[in-house]
This record gives sequence, C-alpha cells and structure tokens, in this order.
Amino acid sequence: MRLFTVIAAAVLLATGGNADDQAAPDRTSLAETERQAALLRDRALEGSAAYAIVESLTTEVGPRLAGTPDEARARDWAVAKLRALGFDDVRVEPFEMTTWVRGLETGAIVSPYPQPLLLTALGNSGATGPDGITGTLVPFATLADFAEAPAESVAGKIVYVGHAMDKTQDGSSYGFFGNVRRRGPAMATAKGAAAILIRSIGTDSRRFPHTGGTRFNDGQTPIPAAAVSNPDADQIERIVALAADGGTPVTVSLTLTPRVAGTTLSGNVIVDLKGSERPDEIVITGGHLDSWDLGTGAVDDGAGVAITTAAVKLIRDAGLTPKRTIRLVLWGAEEVGLLGAQAYARAHADEIANHVTGSESDFGAERIWKLHTGPVSDEGRALTARIARLLAPLGIAPGPENATSGGPDLIPLNRAGMPVLRLVQDGTDYFDLHHTPDDTLDKIDPAVLDQNVAAYAVLLWMVANSDVDFRRTGTGADG
Amino acid sequence: MRLFTVIAAAVLLATGGNADDQAAPDRTSLAETERQAALLRDRALEGSAAYAIVESLTTEVGPRLAGTPDEARARDWAVAKLRALGFDDVRVEPFEMTTWVRGLETGAIVSPYPQPLLLTALGNSGATGPDGITGTLVPFATLADFAEAPAESVAGKIVYVGHAMDKTQDGSSYGFFGNVRRRGPAMATAKGAAAILIRSIGTDSRRFPHTGGTRFNDGQTPIPAAAVSNPDADQIERIVALAADGGTPVTVSLTLTPRVAGTTLSGNVIVDLKGSERPDEIVITGGHLDSWDLGTGAVDDGAGVAITTAAVKLIRDAGLTPKRTIRLVLWGAEEVGLLGAQAYARAHADEIANHVTGSESDFGAERIWKLHTGPVSDEGRALTARIARLLAPLGIAPGPENATSGGPDLIPLNRAGMPVLRLVQDGTDYFDLHHTPDDTLDKIDPAVLDQNVAAYAVLLWMVANSDVDFRRTGTGADG
Repeated sequence: MRLFTVIAAAVLLATGGNADDQAAPDRTSLAETERQAALLRDRALEGSAAYAIVESLTTEVGPRLAGTPDEARARDWAVAKLRALGFDDVRVEPFEMTTWVRGLETGAIVSPYPQPLLLTALGNSGATGPDGITGTLVPFATLADFAEAPAESVAGKIVYVGHAMDKTQDGSSYGFFGNVRRRGPAMATAKGAAAILIRSIGTDSRRFPHTGGTRFNDGQTPIPAAAVSNPDADQIERIVALAADGGTPVTVSLTLTPRVAGTTLSGNVIVDLKGSERPDEIVITGGHLDSWDLGTGAVDDGAGVAITTAAVKLIRDAGLTPKRTIRLVLWGAEEVGLLGAQAYARAHADEIANHVTGSESDFGAERIWKLHTGPVSDEGRALTARIARLLAPLGIAPGPENATSGGPDLIPLNRAGMPVLRLVQDGTDYFDLHHTPDDTLDKIDPAVLDQNVAAYAVLLWMVANSDVDFRRTGTGADG
Repeated sequence: MRLFTVIAAAVLLATGGNADDQAAPDRTSLAETERQAALLRDRALEGSAAYAIVESLTTEVGPRLAGTPDEARARDWAVAKLRALGFDDVRVEPFEMTTWVRGLETGAIVSPYPQPLLLTALGNSGATGPDGITGTLVPFATLADFAEAPAESVAGKIVYVGHAMDKTQDGSSYGFFGNVRRRGPAMATAKGAAAILIRSIGTDSRRFPHTGGTRFNDGQTPIPAAAVSNPDADQIERIVALAADGGTPVTVSLTLTPRVAGTTLSGNVIVDLKGSERPDEIVITGGHLDSWDLGTGAVDDGAGVAITTAAVKLIRDAGLTPKRTIRLVLWGAEEVGLLGAQAYARAHADEIANHVTGSESDFGAERIWKLHTGPVSDEGRALTARIARLLAPLGIAPGPENATSGGPDLIPLNRAGMPVLRLVQDGTDYFDLHHTPDDTLDKIDPAVLDQNVAAYAVLLWMVANSDVDFRRTGTGADG
C-alpha cells in the first residue's frame, strides 16, 4: 500500500503536479484538493524536515523550562529557525508568568534499611530547606485510600502514595492515575503532612523519577512534593511490608530546594501561512516549545514542534496556498499549566469564532494510528471522512467523534467553541520517557516523524483549502 | 523438552528418588550421580530459593560499595542469611583495603550550547574540588586516536573519548571497548589533561552513565575521570560537530568530589558443604557480595550470590553429600579490583592444588546458554561432556575449551593452576544495566534464575561427586 502511494505520487508529479499547476485557480475542486493532499502525504514519506528540526532544538537549546532563560533561548531558536526555513512573518506574543525552578533533590530511606532514593521534585513543590527533613513514612496504595485517611494519621509525617498505572495505546490511563501527582500534594498539604512522595506517573521500570506539575489549593503553602521511580517505589513498598512484619516504622529523609524565581516572561511563537481567499479564517496547529528541565524535551514536545512545523513547511514548499490561513503556534509554558494557551485565548478572544479547527501534536514521536474529532457539524464530519480516506494508507483509522480537546494547548480555544481534530499517536511507550531525563533525541525515529508530518500535511491542507464549517449550529464544540 | 524433564523428575521422585535413597552408599556410580544431578536440575526448575535471596539482599542492604559500612552490612546479611538457610559453619575472612567513595557529581556544556550533562565518577577518580573545573573539550572518537595524540594537544584540557561498543551475546566486546574506561584516565593523566570524560561502557540508550573502576599508574595523581551516558555522549558529539563547523571551541564544566576514605575492612564470606570422601578437595563457586554504589547490585552480582547459594542449598536440602567439598564464596571487593579474590588466593595459597575446579556466577541474571571450560585433562573433558548432556534440556550447549577464567574472582586461582568451568549467561542486554542506578531487582525474572540454579546444581554435583582430576598433567590450567 505504501509503495503504491509513493509510485502514484511520482506519477502525479511527472504528469504536471508541480507547484505552479497545483496552485492554478482552475483546480480548486475537492478532487483537486485531495490530489494535492495525497501528493503532500507521499512527499512527506520520502523525507521531511522534521527530524532535523527536533535535532536542532534539542541539541542547540536542550532543556527549556517555562519562564527561564532556557525557554527564552528556545524562543530565539524558534524565530531564527522559522526564518531560516523561509517563513517571513514570525512573531512572538509574550506573556508574564510566575516561574518555579528546581534545586537540589536527594532522598534516602533512613531506617530500617538505609539506602538512597532517587527522587525529583514535582513542579510547584515546596522546599525542605538545605538541611532536608526526616520523618516517618505513611504509605497508601492509592489516592482514594489517601483521600479517606484522617488528617491526624499523616499530620507532620511524610506521605507516600502509590498506584498501578499501566501502559495503554491511547494513553488514557494518564487521566485517572495522573491525579496522584496533580491532586496528591494539595491533599497532603490539607491534611497537614510534612511532605509527600509519589510513585512516578510512568510506565517504565527505570530509575528515573518522572516530574510534572502539581497544583496546590489557593491559600496553601506548598509542601515538599517529589516523585520516585517505579523501581524505587517497589523498593519502598517492599521495605514497608518487611517493616510492618516487624512492627517497625519506616523513616525517610529528603532534601528539596526548589524556589520561585518570581515573575518572568514566556511567549508563544507564531507564524501564518496566509490564506488566499479567507485569510481571517484560521486553521491552528503546533506543539509546545517549553519542556521539563530534566531531559531535552525531544518527545515532549520537540517532536510536536518539528512535525507541525515540517507539515506547514511542506505545504508552503509545494507552492500551495490554502484558501484559509494555517497558523502554526509554538506554545510557551505548556508544562506548568497551559499558560501560553491561556495567554493566546485571552489575546485572541475576539477571533476565536474565526478559528476553524485546531490540531496540536503533543503526545510523543510514535506513529499516528487514529483520527479523532470532537463534536463537529455534518459537513465537518463529511470532510473528516474524506481526510480519513487519505490517511488510511498511513495506517490511520478513523476514530469516534468524542470529547477530545485536540491537544492540551487547544483546551481554552476548544472550551470557547473551536472544533478540534486530533491525530492520535501511539502512546504505549510514551509514559516510559515522559518528564524524565531520558526524553532525548535518540528516542525518535525519523521515518516515524515523517509519517506524522504526512498526516498533518493532509489534515491541514484539506481543512484549510475547504470552506467547510466544522462548528455545530446551536451548540458549542463540547455540546 | 522442559516439560518432559519435569515429568521425568516427578517419576524419579515417585520411584524412590528421596533424600535417603539418593545418599545411600550403594548408589555412587556415575549413572547414579547423573540420576541425582537430573533430579536436582528438575527440582530447581520447579522453583529455587534464588529470587528470594537476591530480593532480600537488594532490599535489606541495597548498594554495597567495597570497603564501606554498606558492604559490611552485606557481610552481616550474608552470615545471617546463610545461617537462616541452614548452613552452620559460615565464616568471614577479612582483609584490608583502600576505600574510595563517591561525592557530588555534576557537569555541563558551558558553551556554545549551555545545558547539563549527567555524569558519574569512575572508581578511583580524582576530585575537582567543590567549585569544579571548566575547560576546553578535546574529543577523540576512539582510545587509539587518543593514544596517538601529542600531550600538548590535551595538556590542561578536558579530554573526551568515545567508542562504538555494541551488544554481543557473550559480552566479549567489553574486553576491548572497556579499555576506554580502564586505561583512558591513566593515559589522560600521563598527557597532562585536566580531566577526562568517556562515553559510558554501556549498550543502552538511557541517560544513566555507567561507573566502573579505572586504574592510574604508579606515581600518578588521579585526575577527575567520569562517564557520560550514551545519549549525552551523542549530544556532546553533535555539539562538537556543530561547533567545529563554526570554528568554536566547546567548553565543559564538571564538579566531582570523590575521596579516598582510607584503609577499611572488606571480607569474603565462606561456607562449605563438606565432602564425605575427599573433604580436602574443593569445588569452588560463588558470586561477589559488593556492588557499585549507584544501583542495588541486583544483576551485578546479587544474582550470582543468589544462584550459587541456591544451588548449594538445593544439593544440601536434597540430602546429598558430595565426595568432595563444595565451597561457596561470596567475594568482597570485586568491583574495585578483585581484592577479595586476591586475598583468598594469598590466604589459601597452600591449598590451591586442592581446588578441583572453579565456577563463578558474575554476568547478570539472564539464561545460561553455553558451558565453556578452560584447558582441562582428558578425563575432565569426558566428565564435562556428561555434564553438557545433563544441561542440554536447559537449552545449554557445550562451548569450546578456551581461555575462560571461570569468572573474575577466580582469575588468581586460575592463574595459579585451578581448572575452571564457566556457565555462560546471555549477555546481550547485560551492559544496558551494568554499573548504573538501573541495576535493580525488577530486572530479574525468577524463572530465569531457576534455570541458572539448575545448571549450577548439575555442574557442582557432577564435579564434586566425582574423583575426576581436571588438571592437565605437566601444564598449568592456562597451558
């Protein structure tokens, strides 16, 4: 199938599928748009610019925590790179944010079996002070068990919360089990705990703890909150079981010295491929530019930046101009609470009605295996079916019309009524690397990135070169 | 095949293969010894004590760097565990050693693309002082390239040496590529370098750097010497290439604060399963008790401790008493230079002629796939063929008679003439974990340990219950 499509593309090219012909005004029928989409798809499979883009970002910038000088360097990189790729009108929309930065982080089981623990602070964690804290560990198997525990059972102690998150292809377990990280620390603060350790929200058996944001409640003073790797969590649980047999408490120590660096600037980097007929109608795509600080943000989300940038570049380099504007947004400060997404939604509140659809790539660097949409109009559903037909040779099946947000940075726009389409990547192994030092370039297969670029190019071209309205009349996109 | 052997064992058990019968004096023929060996093998496959032993060691002791209080706790653990397993005559043979301990270790690329490096000091590394050092990086693709470089090209600078070690089933690449770690730092010191970074001697693409011992030359003052993970080495090499394009030097910083803790005690823990007819003849086995400090020493070498201990226990629990003594040695201070092995060879110099054969388990926790021997006598070769026949149902093929040492801790005894047999484990993935924080219990499959125990029980029983002399007359074991 794939060989066939490559041959077909070669034939199309040979029989006049060059840039000038494709852009000719007499070829704007749906059939011609589909022919062009197939051509883009097959060109992407021959090799896109995506791998070189993520290689450049992760090598020349590396880690780029939101609000830090590292993220500022990433914005400078993005502006320079987009210009070097031939985009003229690159702009940065800055916004202010409160910036948290990591400090030292060490931990140990003090008794009954002394040994180091490898841990990492969760984003927004409080600090222990440089001398650390030592306390009795109070373990819970699940967040629900912890939620039920009386405050006096954990007050002044160090809480540990486990869970049993397993791999899923669609990554859906992250929603439920991720609450241990998102909500556990606030719950521990409310119960008066001295600190909280959680089993990493990860599916690997490597000793890298997984960081990620947590949120404390208004008025709470953040307590120290850290994750341990799955092997260390297993070790804690074995020691807890042995100690319980002997009636011995388990004592742990931890030193975390993160701090709030104050108010700094982040920003979204934006470039438009201007529409020829309806330039005010916007088809939005992109990935996020910031990363957690532990790795180099290759799969989260250098890959998304690279895939969507390469897809827009592919369309432009083919000499194609869509009727509508394709807007590429490289979002700032996603990891720490979708701050770039919120800033964009505020700054562009008056234009959201003009945003036709949104599709963000932010789920790693593996193959796309299905196409979801949020609720869409009948004509939107019909066009999606045509898109799905073009994606089928890439191994992508149509998925259900459901409540997908289209990607984290599109949540505010989606809530404000923008329809979304989501090209779903295989997430089976995503949470092996997610938010760890191990999120590095070597985990990315260039040919798989090209499959992603092919799918985004099809999707963006098909939507942007149509006049289909995806909004359902009389309901919001969530309706 | 495996099912068949289990059934066969059950039949043997049902038809009188109980402990008293097996030990009966009228059943000492080779055929009877083989019947007993097959029984031991098949019992091991039904479930041995090995996993519980390595679980206990890695949980209750954890990391146990040679010469430290952690290794002393491991010795205490070993004495208590062997007694709990029913061995009465457990003894410790202590020895003095110079002990090196790790300190802080951080590093970064300072320019042109600032970002952290994850690194770990090599054993015996010198220190930078608490403020670290910064210097120009001078990269070499191989140790041979570095060896040829004139001293003035690296004097006062930070050397980087790469290599291209790949996976091999027998782990043989470690000998050649491991020289980057073993010899690179002494070479860098001799050339006047300020420090040396090496690409980890590892085959994974995880961001754990691999530690391991290095040796400086007599009279040298150790310089700081550290390993970076493969992903970080890739990153360094990409940045070196980009910087070379722009004619820019690459500057790195590192802080390493290891220190020599002075003279401390290590020790070998020894237990004998006393021979009934020739108690002075010793068939030696074991694994090493110390580990590197980064992981919990599960595959290196908690597994070897567990496999060999479980094999000896299996023989004893079957009520079998071999003609010769089976000696289990849990070696101290292997990782830092075979210090326990040397101490044993010194302390037992007068008895080495009585050591019939040696077989150490120190190559991880994967399946055994072949049986090697060093040079042996004709009758030794004949008995080895009988052993190989008993091991065949375990998927173990006979290998060549070659220069195997029988395991690192047997090198001194082997050099002094003791013949060796080596049950070779599959090492394909061994150097993914070797000397990293990731060497933890979760990497071990209990059923695979049982396969190892089965093989060791066969080997030990067959050799110890024979009167075969494995020494080749008129030559050393290496002859």
